[in-house]
Amino acid sequence: MHNWLLPEYIEDVLPAEAARVESLRRKLLDLFAVHGYRYVIPPMLEYTESLITGAASDLDLATFKVVDQLTGRLMGVRADITPQTARIDAHMLNQQGVTRLCYAGTVLRTKPDGLAHTREPLQVGAEIYGHAGIESDIEVYGLAVKALLALGLSGIHLDFSHVGIFESLVQSAKIEAALENEIYTALQSKDKVLVATLGASLDAVTRQALLDLTDLYGDAKVLEKARQVLPKQQAIQTALNDLQMIASALDGVDIGFDLSELRGYHYHSGVVFAAYAQGYTGPLVLGGRYDEVGKAFGRARPATGFSLDLRGVVQALQPALMPSVILAPASGDVRLLDKINTLRSRGDAVIQLLPGEESSAAELSCDRQLVLKNDSWQVEKI
Amino acid sequence: MHNWLLPEYIEDVLPAEAARVESLRRKLLDLFAVHGYRYVIPPMLEYTESLITGAASDLDLATFKVVDQLTGRLMGVRADITPQTARIDAHMLNQQGVTRLCYAGTVLRTKPDGLAHTREPLQVGAEIYGHAGIESDIEVYGLAVKALLALGLSGIHLDFSHVGIFESLVQSAKIEAALENEIYTALQSKDKVLVATLGASLDAVTRQALLDLTDLYGDAKVLEKARQVLPKQQAIQTALNDLQMIASALDGVDIGFDLSELRGYHYHSGVVFAAYAQGYTGPLVLGGRYDEVGKAFGRARPATGFSLDLRGVVQALQPALMPSVILAPASGDVRLLDKINTLRSRGDAVIQLLPGEESSAAELSCDRQLVLKNDSWQVEKI
Repeated sequence: MHNWLLPEYIEDVLPAEAARVESLRRKLLDLFAVHGYRYVIPPMLEYTESLITGAASDLDLATFKVVDQLTGRLMGVRADITPQTARIDAHMLNQQGVTRLCYAGTVLRTKPDGLAHTREPLQVGAEIYGHAGIESDIEVYGLAVKALLALGLSGIHLDFSHVGIFESLVQSAKIEAALENEIYTALQSKDKVLVATLGASLDAVTRQALLDLTDLYGDAKVLEKARQVLPKQQAIQTALNDLQMIASALDGVDIGFDLSELRGYHYHSGVVFAAYAQGYTGPLVLGGRYDEVGKAFGRARPATGFSLDLRGVVQALQPALMPSVILAPASGDVRLLDKINTLRSRGDAVIQLLPGEESSAAELSCDRQLVLKNDSWQVEKI
Repeated sequence: MHNWLLPEYIEDVLPAEAARVESLRRKLLDLFAVHGYRYVIPPMLEYTESLITGAASDLDLATFKVVDQLTGRLMGVRADITPQTARIDAHMLNQQGVTRLCYAGTVLRTKPDGLAHTREPLQVGAEIYGHAGIESDIEVYGLAVKALLALGLSGIHLDFSHVGIFESLVQSAKIEAALENEIYTALQSKDKVLVATLGASLDAVTRQALLDLTDLYGDAKVLEKARQVLPKQQAIQTALNDLQMIASALDGVDIGFDLSELRGYHYHSGVVFAAYAQGYTGPLVLGGRYDEVGKAFGRARPATGFSLDLRGVVQALQPALMPSVILAPASGDVRLLDKINTLRSRGDAVIQLLPGEESSAAELSCDRQLVLKNDSWQVEKI
């Protein structure tokens, strides 16, 4: 057993890739900043009561627990940052108006998850608190698209659903919680046979509506079809109206709808969405409305937002190149030191060899070097 | 009991301060990059065997432990990043020449520690692997000074010591481990009475040398005095020569020596140093040589470096101001949207009000607004 082996689904990010992660992280935070989203840094560690709130109880199993040696209470290492920003909105900032927040931080999960199949995603996201209208959702979708473009991705596609539709069917048919969960799972895999079996005890209208949901995916025409085939319940009409507004507002963006896709159903309260890009099999961005998230902190403000795993995004990119470096000889020549300082102040990376250092230029990824020519130090290709 | 209260010594970093942390983090990483230090992102989580190595066994108590649900093995959440970079140097990169690495990441500690008295320092540091000469130490000190200047600090002072002196006294007098630890602790507090008591069983020369150590602090003259009063052991001469070379090389930097200050004695193997700045009571930067750190990974390369807690540094600064934002009205006017895009692409933060949004300009930290004048959208002071 080698003592330097890392646990499964835990990895170092080595120089070339780390430089890219850092550069893309900055691009995202800068993008959020110019849109007025304020950066916050919530802690890695909280009491489990605040970290794993009611609305996010499926986080419980994903969260590593440790004992607080100062109090004996149970703490968790965060597995998601969204509940933390809700806590900050509710109690730390406590603004009356709309609050836009963003974050970028490591989360840990007990089991591998998501795009990168990792236990240590680098979660980057943005949230709007305090606005219930569809306009804040649309602002969030637009920002998600800009974020993916800033990462250099193309072929961006957004897929929308609305948890209100399934919720309305469940409530009107008074489906009990255990069966609700089973049907929910069957819908996620679009398993018609299973949905039909599970729905056998339900009224014919609800059963048919659940079956119809598995077919209601595609472009905006799906919304028209949904109006025809789904029951005329008020919540379903509202949900379809919301989705129709999104279709109109995101003119020019490649979007689709999938009414049985209810990712984060227990967590979200309205429109949910996922963003895809060329070259990735799974969704890169997940988000939606989750008005209930602040309730656990005594202030259930309307909330909408999205997040992505930056490490997962970077892993699927072409291998990164090492940033190139200029090699300088080991010399105390003041003119050389001046030249090195000038180059560095311009943003060029310069390594000055140490006495006795026998590093190869290739190992240091140096493609240029400083040489003394005509009494002055000049940069030359190696 | 409010469920949104954070554990003791765990804090959110809220917008104004978070923006500053991010800006200073970038300055440090950019500084390291132009000096040829490659950024790495080691994981938050490792098996305890690799995280808590022999040389760093005092980390054990500081490290939160969790069970790996995939293997049942014990993992730790890192309490220090330095052993991780040593592992990366030894096994992931495995270069033959000199390797310069840098990092910036959160570490967790079971009890509050260091400058900021926090359990969640943001550890930023730089390391050189593969060079045993004093020149790499001097490169590291120079970089530490530049790092503090980049953070906007002044009145920078570096304090040096060398663990080889105490080590040599211990070995020549064959002091056993338990007594060694007691004397070490007494030396850290310069408790002469205790040092004399503990040294009662030792030979007169060693006892006197240990007592002398508590007085050997001050400017470079201390080194001359040390040559006179300390035993003429080879390792002590070498240590004093190293310190003398540092004094010559750092001409122009405010430096001092404190030969009984052995912070990280069990960890370091040569010169150790601490950097101070005006306005801070404790040391901001800790570092030194720790050639043994890679041994646990089967490759004990020479190593020297430093780290600082960026959150601690920022906490002692004047409260940060919120970055200012331009307020735009809720309107779909294409010229307004164009203007907003232009401002954002230039790096200006613009918040466009949402329909029904009643945020106050002050709450959004907006000091300017977009107004329509003479048929064009213009930025005005509020």
